[in-house]
Amino acid sequence: MCGIFGIFGHSNGKQIAKTGIWAEQHRGQDAAGIACLRIKNSKKGLIEVEKKPGKVREVLQGQDFDDLSGEVWIAHVRYSTQGKPSKRNAQPHYAQSIHGRIAIVSNGDVVNMEEQRNFLDRHDIQIYTENDAELIVASINYQITFRKRDIIEAIAQVMEHIQGAFSALVITEFDDRLFAFRDPFGIRPLFISIVEEKGRKTYMFASETSAFDAVLPLFGSGAKIELRMVEPGEIIAVGPRGIESFKGPKAERQAFCLFEFVYFSRPDSTINGKSFQAFRINAGRELCKEYPAEADLVSPIPKSGIPAGVGYASFSGIPYMPVIIENPSFDIDFGRRRTFIEPTEQERLLKAQLKFNFIADLIQEKRLVITDDSIVRGLITGVVNKALWQSKAKSVHIRIASPPYRFPCFYGIETKRKNTLAAAGRTMEGIKELIGQPTTLAYLSLEGLIKSVEIPKDQLCTACFDGNYPIPIPCVL
Amino acid sequence: MCGIFGIFGHSNGKQIAKTGIWAEQHRGQDAAGIACLRIKNSKKGLIEVEKKPGKVREVLQGQDFDDLSGEVWIAHVRYSTQGKPSKRNAQPHYAQSIHGRIAIVSNGDVVNMEEQRNFLDRHDIQIYTENDAELIVASINYQITFRKRDIIEAIAQVMEHIQGAFSALVITEFDDRLFAFRDPFGIRPLFISIVEEKGRKTYMFASETSAFDAVLPLFGSGAKIELRMVEPGEIIAVGPRGIESFKGPKAERQAFCLFEFVYFSRPDSTINGKSFQAFRINAGRELCKEYPAEADLVSPIPKSGIPAGVGYASFSGIPYMPVIIENPSFDIDFGRRRTFIEPTEQERLLKAQLKFNFIADLIQEKRLVITDDSIVRGLITGVVNKALWQSKAKSVHIRIASPPYRFPCFYGIETKRKNTLAAAGRTMEGIKELIGQPTTLAYLSLEGLIKSVEIPKDQLCTACFDGNYPIPIPCVL
Amino acid sequence: MCGIFGIFGHSNGKQIAKTGIWAEQHRGQDAAGIACLRIKNSKKGLIEVEKKPGKVREVLQGQDFDDLSGEVWIAHVRYSTQGKPSKRNAQPHYAQSIHGRIAIVSNGDVVNMEEQRNFLDRHDIQIYTENDAELIVASINYQITFRKRDIIEAIAQVMEHIQGAFSALVITEFDDRLFAFRDPFGIRPLFISIVEEKGRKTYMFASETSAFDAVLPLFGSGAKIELRMVEPGEIIAVGPRGIESFKGPKAERQAFCLFEFVYFSRPDSTINGKSFQAFRINAGRELCKEYPAEADLVSPIPKSGIPAGVGYASFSGIPYMPVIIENPSFDIDFGRRRTFIEPTEQERLLKAQLKFNFIADLIQEKRLVITDDSIVRGLITGVVNKALWQSKAKSVHIRIASPPYRFPCFYGIETKRKNTLAAAGRTMEGIKELIGQPTTLAYLSLEGLIKSVEIPKDQLCTACFDGNYPIPIPCVL
Amino acid sequence: MCGIFGIFGHSNGKQIAKTGIWAEQHRGQDAAGIACLRIKNSKKGLIEVEKKPGKVREVLQGQDFDDLSGEVWIAHVRYSTQGKPSKRNAQPHYAQSIHGRIAIVSNGDVVNMEEQRNFLDRHDIQIYTENDAELIVASINYQITFRKRDIIEAIAQVMEHIQGAFSALVITEFDDRLFAFRDPFGIRPLFISIVEEKGRKTYMFASETSAFDAVLPLFGSGAKIELRMVEPGEIIAVGPRGIESFKGPKAERQAFCLFEFVYFSRPDSTINGKSFQAFRINAGRELCKEYPAEADLVSPIPKSGIPAGVGYASFSGIPYMPVIIENPSFDIDFGRRRTFIEPTEQERLLKAQLKFNFIADLIQEKRLVITDDSIVRGLITGVVNKALWQSKAKSVHIRIASPPYRFPCFYGIETKRKNTLAAAGRTMEGIKELIGQPTTLAYLSLEGLIKSVEIPKDQLCTACFDGNYPIPIPCVL
Repeated sequence: MCGIFGIFGHSNGKQIAKTGIWAEQHRGQDAAGIACLRIKNSKKGLIEVEKKPGKVREVLQGQDFDDLSGEVWIAHVRYSTQGKPSKRNAQPHYAQSIHGRIAIVSNGDVVNMEEQRNFLDRHDIQIYTENDAELIVASINYQITFRKRDIIEAIAQVMEHIQGAFSALVITEFDDRLFAFRDPFGIRPLFISIVEEKGRKTYMFASETSAFDAVLPLFGSGAKIELRMVEPGEIIAVGPRGIESFKGPKAERQAFCLFEFVYFSRPDSTINGKSFQAFRINAGRELCKEYPAEADLVSPIPKSGIPAGVGYASFSGIPYMPVIIENPSFDIDFGRRRTFIEPTEQERLLKAQLKFNFIADLIQEKRLVITDDSIVRGLITGVVNKALWQSKAKSVHIRIASPPYRFPCFYGIETKRKNTLAAAGRTMEGIKELIGQPTTLAYLSLEGLIKSVEIPKDQLCTACFDGNYPIPIPCVL
Repeated sequence: MCGIFGIFGHSNGKQIAKTGIWAEQHRGQDAAGIACLRIKNSKKGLIEVEKKPGKVREVLQGQDFDDLSGEVWIAHVRYSTQGKPSKRNAQPHYAQSIHGRIAIVSNGDVVNMEEQRNFLDRHDIQIYTENDAELIVASINYQITFRKRDIIEAIAQVMEHIQGAFSALVITEFDDRLFAFRDPFGIRPLFISIVEEKGRKTYMFASETSAFDAVLPLFGSGAKIELRMVEPGEIIAVGPRGIESFKGPKAERQAFCLFEFVYFSRPDSTINGKSFQAFRINAGRELCKEYPAEADLVSPIPKSGIPAGVGYASFSGIPYMPVIIENPSFDIDFGRRRTFIEPTEQERLLKAQLKFNFIADLIQEKRLVITDDSIVRGLITGVVNKALWQSKAKSVHIRIASPPYRFPCFYGIETKRKNTLAAAGRTMEGIKELIGQPTTLAYLSLEGLIKSVEIPKDQLCTACFDGNYPIPIPCVL
Repeated sequence: MCGIFGIFGHSNGKQIAKTGIWAEQHRGQDAAGIACLRIKNSKKGLIEVEKKPGKVREVLQGQDFDDLSGEVWIAHVRYSTQGKPSKRNAQPHYAQSIHGRIAIVSNGDVVNMEEQRNFLDRHDIQIYTENDAELIVASINYQITFRKRDIIEAIAQVMEHIQGAFSALVITEFDDRLFAFRDPFGIRPLFISIVEEKGRKTYMFASETSAFDAVLPLFGSGAKIELRMVEPGEIIAVGPRGIESFKGPKAERQAFCLFEFVYFSRPDSTINGKSFQAFRINAGRELCKEYPAEADLVSPIPKSGIPAGVGYASFSGIPYMPVIIENPSFDIDFGRRRTFIEPTEQERLLKAQLKFNFIADLIQEKRLVITDDSIVRGLITGVVNKALWQSKAKSVHIRIASPPYRFPCFYGIETKRKNTLAAAGRTMEGIKELIGQPTTLAYLSLEGLIKSVEIPKDQLCTACFDGNYPIPIPCVL
Repeated sequence: MCGIFGIFGHSNGKQIAKTGIWAEQHRGQDAAGIACLRIKNSKKGLIEVEKKPGKVREVLQGQDFDDLSGEVWIAHVRYSTQGKPSKRNAQPHYAQSIHGRIAIVSNGDVVNMEEQRNFLDRHDIQIYTENDAELIVASINYQITFRKRDIIEAIAQVMEHIQGAFSALVITEFDDRLFAFRDPFGIRPLFISIVEEKGRKTYMFASETSAFDAVLPLFGSGAKIELRMVEPGEIIAVGPRGIESFKGPKAERQAFCLFEFVYFSRPDSTINGKSFQAFRINAGRELCKEYPAEADLVSPIPKSGIPAGVGYASFSGIPYMPVIIENPSFDIDFGRRRTFIEPTEQERLLKAQLKFNFIADLIQEKRLVITDDSIVRGLITGVVNKALWQSKAKSVHIRIASPPYRFPCFYGIETKRKNTLAAAGRTMEGIKELIGQPTTLAYLSLEGLIKSVEIPKDQLCTACFDGNYPIPIPCVL
């Protein structure tokens, strides 16, 4: 999981890019980076890059950052999935083509890394890291330097050969435009916002629409805004001569990540004009429809379970009443990493115990509906369930606003080891046992979830729930 | 606003003290400190202190912290009210009596500082800082060194002469006990928890009960727990020979800070066995009873307005639906300081705009009840109101779960400049204008609030709402 | 002034490179960097670079440094001449050719920067910094990528077109060798050392031979060593197949920097098998021959004047007796930067006063010969002269072991502003006045200096003393 | 080994104290600290302290240092002898008497620590560290608080009971003067300098006179200066009413540390109006008189052997010619700690090899006299001797300008473990073997050394050379 942001056409682009990528920091707190293109003329410019481990406000400051200047900016936040975060692995990555540097930021995961690395290796293109964004930009370089293609053709070619999820922004030293493209299946989100002020247009790209909201105070008050998603397989170029759209390879179907609806995106981000908060409240209502419960109150596991709780409560008429409280310093001191990524089981447990407190006087003798968005490892749910019984709940009805998470994701979420998934290879009874025997446990059906998000099933990637992978996964994995 | 924690009687006291004070970090993120007493015998021990600006996990680590060891621990988190946070002003403070060091942590504010400083100055007792805790410990030293009193008498004497709010913990080098005391009016909270495991008792003191909850995983599972408040004017000593309670001076009435119910304490902390969350939900229900509204949804201003929103929604039957979202990285990067303490108006506004986002699709064409716990400066409420109208709300009914905050607090909350309070010297119309003309604005009555907290009015300090100061304020202020 | 070091052929190359470049730190303390080539096969490898402002032991440590591995290493220490030291300006620099990266470290200064930058700009080669090493490597890239030359031809071409002083080391991703070359005039030094242990050869390059001495303890005790200078205009390649030497362009004459003998090189470094210490002692003896003095003792201005003092004393028979003492903490706290590079006159003066102390009991009533290697600005000499008179010297005979420094250097020493040179435009009387009227002042003649260094005048660059620039300087300077 | 500095009577006292203690940094680079007294009236003031591990310029800067202000200043540099340097062990130390704080800086070592600690412990005075300065100030506090003595009497009493070496400066909160005192034997140095400008007197104390030289530029140019040593057993008070001298206990004899002449003091510091450089040159001449050698050149081991080499050369007429060069970055990166204090033998050896280089062309086929001030462990001498033979010296005559160092020091130098001393329990042949068989090895006789320093033997402590300890050492050591 990562976040990207790009901007062309605003004199304050540097500040806007910093604020925009900061608004996406929930998608990755391990490293951050930015690249800028200082345009000399329509054919030439200079790209410089700053990146390192740390949060946005730690990385994008200091003399090295202050020294940057330019007209086009792309930025990235990274969620480290393996090893310690390092400068090497941070994005933007870049390649040096025969015409100059090409820089990229990308969100997603390439499936045929090995094959593509070998191909590039045979063709004298060096790869310095294990990062898939570097592979993409090196492939673009190959197309430009050795196959003599122009940048649009090069990107289109790469979109053919690279398999996986990617939503990417690219700048080059031999062109004054900012390029955006999304994989043929459209697995990861990417939005474009065009802001018009006094006849001048600014083009911005972001993984989430809330980044556009965050930068709005940096524009004048009378700005006109146009917002849409970059299409699967679409290549967009924005620059001094306006916006152009090119058709890259498009898959026979779309496969937007359903888990973005469940967990990743900020609740205040939107898709098709509607907020994820709204979709998640929908899911809570559906959940209640499918699995009602006799209860005195509905409480979410914060923060992820809040909209499901709101929906469940409003559909059922049971009062919404938060009885599980996050330690107010927890996020500040430990960051917002989902608990499933901690080093050892013991450390995960201790942190989980520090994370929440339980309001005993509101719990005891009460019949509780407890909502969450999903169960990944089951650790949190187990800690919560146990604590509720210790606080003398009369009954604990756990309601999960998505189906059992049974299959690892290969398109940008780090759950590649199947054996850590609570629902993988377990019956419902087995999961109940794992999390400590709540009174009842129920998951929203896949149909219910799909209905909630108002997108047809054949435009969604549902692989983590049903194993139906839109792009074949190499068996080595 | 500050938080304190103390422990006697556990072999893992250092870790428990660190975790306990960390759980109170919401009461002060500017500086932290700890003191420990290494007992040599019932008459003698050594006290050492570590403190500096920073958050708990930054301060209580490293070699200097690792070097500490002892049997009795007191810790503090500090909320800087003036100037830059510095090591000098951090607590614990200590004085050196003729028999050895005396260390203190205190929460509150002394009203007759000037007079007491002058008194000590005349009697050759040095004061190094402006901090009221140092004044208290210096006064105790005076009683011990020059008036030859024992430690209990000394504390009792100081409680007579020092006027103001204080809840304090004290250790000395000439006694193996931990002392706790609260001002005669009992303005600031202080709790004692006695945990018995296998016949051995551990005594802990904390500003909030949630600190006891946070350290519970560090005890065995079969522990028996006894919890009560330290009484106004009470002096408690805990040590190897058990617990003793002494009667210090007691005021003719109690005056527990009502604003602890409104804002300060964590929702999962309790008083009289009931959580602040419960009291705040009560207040939301009362608010609805007093000021109902025709609306489609109830949304809190997060996080402070949540329980009021829950209460309002449950009483009214209007769906609870959060449409104002905190930027998930805001607290992490800027801390949880209430917005009213930022340096300049401009900076406050920019931060306030970064702090929230508004879910337009859930807002537009909707009639909204917006709840918050209080209005101090009015900045946040104004930013929110304006944004809701921009998101095309049909109506905005602002409901505040406490009365207008009209009078500065001199007992531990830094609102001493009256002219910054939105409600001071403004009519209801004036406040509406200040915050940008919501459709309606209503505050819970003082009676309604008092009813919600289930404590008689004559045991509460209501000064910030009605100007009825239990302890006279020197006119110089 | 900078220092470079390179190594091929040793399994402990990383540690040797770090120690070697550290031994050259006196040539630049502002920034340091290293590049390594991890060879995959004779045609391919990967280059990685670490560099930043700071001293060697600060830069070459930590995780980023630990992560480096490879078979070939080049390293650099930098002396910042303009602006703050930054990561951007640190070496190694690199360019990305069509076949892969090319990395360089270089010591010297390019004279026709502007012309060459424009040339590259017209040919689509980007230059990111003002640094001349980047210009050289970019020019090599141009030859390889656009003119399709092999690496040796490319270097030879660049040596034709780039005018100035450069001693450089180069590695590439498309060749498993380490390349070294020196400008046609041989202005800056560059040495090669071949160490043979058990039949295996290690090749090292360094700006000074003392770097080879420093790394010797890292080799076995029975190593056979071969040492020579890289010739002016020579290109050397060392690699798995041994050593090859190529003839690049050679100037009609050599022009080795005479100031290396006077000041730059460490006294324990050698040239033609003889130490700079020995040459400098020679110069002291010559100085005494040319300008004897009636005196009671000879004292150097430490540390630069020591060998001249030793030579002067031994020739004259006057006792050598140091009466000027460096504050022992001065270098440690302020570094060894020659005093003439401090920001303001006032700061320079204060530092100069802190730098030295004067042993009054050895000075008073004594006739002193005071030696130094040179006078650049005259600040130090002035401070010293004044202090000696205050300590009641009977007479002060200042003897400088080189001619008046009258002309700025454009080949790697930052004295480009002529008006700061004490001797520029001043008569001997004028200089005496500037430094506060010593009893006598005398400079070694150019002939005397040349005789001391045992190299014919037509193989030396004497420009700073006589304005005879071997390479024409663009008039814009 | 430590250094102290104090000042009363100058409006720029803070800057002068910082510069003065910095000039003594060679006496201790592990920690530094300062205390200031802000006088309120002749009876009252406030003392504040800043100290921590690090060098002077690292410790005495930043907000905490900037916040200090006052009229009287005392400062300290510390050489850690055991464990890691920590804030706890840094000086100034202070005690809190019944009348206020007393702060101290001290140079030396107390011999009867254990006995005095037990005494204070029985009398309810706490000691927090193992540091002897804290013991002294705690003892002063005992005399003041419990024995009701005035400050002069208290110091005099302490000087009776505390056995060992101490030169100390004291300030208190209940007196506006600065106090200085030296142990009855006068083992460690302490000087007073009185500077009169325009009728106003400034009083300064320092361990070495070069500190007074360093601060002189901060005075006006017409200042009149009076300099003398604080006498053994003397107590001096300086303050607004001028200077007073009191007689404390005086020993039957003086015992000034002879090793201050040999190694510790800066060469430019003076005693009895003559520089240590002069005494050390004397010693080199005596050494030559006692142990002449047939040789081609005299070279010191830098920097400690320089004055002995100068003296030896001037007496013998053999040319002085430095052939051993310190790596110019060694001190900067590793500090100036004498090499004998490194953690392991292996590390000591590696560092010793990095520290020096040897100028082979000046060494080969030459007969060398190599001078040093002393041999402690013998490591350095051994490394040097071996390298000289490897550089093909014809003969190596090692000449040491002090007698064999055979007995540990208990008065402030950390050589308490006898078994690490090269000369302890070894014959001259044994030492020669240890250091690798130089051609000859000779030490200056004790008589020769004493003659050089121009002080009668019965006024010197010669314990490290002859085991004649002026103050009895507890047998436990």
